[in-house]
Amino acid sequence: MVTTEDRLVKKMAAALGSTSPRKSLRLGIGDDAALYRPTAGREIILTCDWFLEGSHFLRETDPPDSVGWKCLVRAVSDIAAMGGKPKVFLLSFALPETHTGPWLTHFLRGLRRAARYCRCQLAGGDTTRRKEILINITVIGEVPAGQALRRSGAEPGDLIFVSGSLGRAEFGLRALRRGQMDSAQAQLCIQKHLYPEPRLLLGQWLARNRIASAMMDLSDGLSTDLPRLCAASDVGARIEATNIPAVKLPASKQALSPLELALNGGDDYELLFTSHPGKARHVPRRLGRIPLTCIGQITRGREVLFFQADGPKKTMLPRGWDPFRK
Amino acid sequence: MVTTEDRLVKKMAAALGSTSPRKSLRLGIGDDAALYRPTAGREIILTCDWFLEGSHFLRETDPPDSVGWKCLVRAVSDIAAMGGKPKVFLLSFALPETHTGPWLTHFLRGLRRAARYCRCQLAGGDTTRRKEILINITVIGEVPAGQALRRSGAEPGDLIFVSGSLGRAEFGLRALRRGQMDSAQAQLCIQKHLYPEPRLLLGQWLARNRIASAMMDLSDGLSTDLPRLCAASDVGARIEATNIPAVKLPASKQALSPLELALNGGDDYELLFTSHPGKARHVPRRLGRIPLTCIGQITRGREVLFFQADGPKKTMLPRGWDPFRK
Repeated sequence: MVTTEDRLVKKMAAALGSTSPRKSLRLGIGDDAALYRPTAGREIILTCDWFLEGSHFLRETDPPDSVGWKCLVRAVSDIAAMGGKPKVFLLSFALPETHTGPWLTHFLRGLRRAARYCRCQLAGGDTTRRKEILINITVIGEVPAGQALRRSGAEPGDLIFVSGSLGRAEFGLRALRRGQMDSAQAQLCIQKHLYPEPRLLLGQWLARNRIASAMMDLSDGLSTDLPRLCAASDVGARIEATNIPAVKLPASKQALSPLELALNGGDDYELLFTSHPGKARHVPRRLGRIPLTCIGQITRGREVLFFQADGPKKTMLPRGWDPFRK
Repeated sequence: MVTTEDRLVKKMAAALGSTSPRKSLRLGIGDDAALYRPTAGREIILTCDWFLEGSHFLRETDPPDSVGWKCLVRAVSDIAAMGGKPKVFLLSFALPETHTGPWLTHFLRGLRRAARYCRCQLAGGDTTRRKEILINITVIGEVPAGQALRRSGAEPGDLIFVSGSLGRAEFGLRALRRGQMDSAQAQLCIQKHLYPEPRLLLGQWLARNRIASAMMDLSDGLSTDLPRLCAASDVGARIEATNIPAVKLPASKQALSPLELALNGGDDYELLFTSHPGKARHVPRRLGRIPLTCIGQITRGREVLFFQADGPKKTMLPRGWDPFRK
């Protein structure tokens, strides 16, 4: 009387059901829908993300536990970008029957690690059979009412910051695809590409202390995402190229431009935020082990200008990841 | 500075952003995530559903506005099945560039109609390019705390009810695929297949008046879904075939069995619920224009037995839609 789909749901519930159990989750996987009791005085943050074979990962190349880790973490990164805490998630999953054995086991192992790391519990989802592996994750988070950070709060004069170093995930992706894993730097960047970490504590710290005026996560590359933040805030920006904390490349990779990788590489999941000069002095150089770097300033007008020490000023053009660009 | 993806998001926001605006939605489409302020004393209902080309609809055959309507309504049906009210939804959408013109316009028109019908506002989502059209919908609903109806509440002796008539959507699907749209019944069933209606008022009425002990929606067919409800409640059931409100077929379709369609046809989105005999007498024959029919009784043990007037009793075997069955 139990269908194959039901068995699959049970396998997933067994692997994930008891991860970081939350009392607020009144009813989890297995019913028509999940029931969640929100904390009083909090707003709910809602976000969803595709993670599709061929577009976002490669079935044959990427370790299944990285697919499991990354599909959750990149959605959780949007919660970090609002200054919130992730609470529960829904997993929509389509996969071929050939992948319901060991591949699924390793996938669930990576997803379980990510769920524990983010303290985010599986609440439900939808499973179906498909030739290709398709994943969609919805994450539900919480933030104290009025504290959420948006893209639209930047004002002229605000300083612009980024966390971490940019372009690492892109370099890791290239190194992995070319089998060039010979250096410690390459290893670090491959790790960043396969197992990114959401900047949850930084996002919450900035929201709680009301230090940031606007924030978003860097998923498509600085040259795409900064213009988005500026458009949402109806402002412009000027960025100093020399200030951008670009990925450090191994000596053997001099042909690549760290700045290009930093501007246009996707998947870093670092935070981009702005801060009023009076508050920006409270931004430390590092929060924990994560460096925070001022890369420029918000301006009036809508232009995003880019200054290089030895070149002319340029308008920053989005060259990051856009699935619809030819 | 605006990417193609951003333009697509704007088109969607323009078509859907202002549909049934809800004050509880503090921040909608266009940021990293949406912000939702839940009503005090309510629990949040969370559900998500795939709607995939080739699996759930056909790109060349199904009208795009039906795809837009149905992708939302089937997810909202899970909210109805808990006795809740839909509030906001997230749309994850992958589509080919060839479909970002008229197809998308008609799709959004159907989705907009469904959003208004269900009073459910678009809150956000994720859009990407893909050869195939892939849709995933997350719906967030609300229900007064403690009032949600689950699959697991059925007790031995409870009467079993279904709404509407079963097998209509399945017959509509067959009539549509074979181009047999000659009769009024066929037209009605095709309408049911393309534009199903979630049983929101019925679900809320049953929850508010505490009449149902367990409930779920019929999406995969009675023969698959009733055993699921029984398994969740750790009970069995006996069903009288003659009581099942099966689809009425046109005279020319005598070769088809209405009972087979009623048992195994998917996509009806009617409600299946159980009720203690003392409360079942409050179940009317119709709620509004929707007939409610008692089809059997919950029993001890785990067997789901099926009685036919002229045949032996049989165990009900799931023959409804299961994507993993070969």
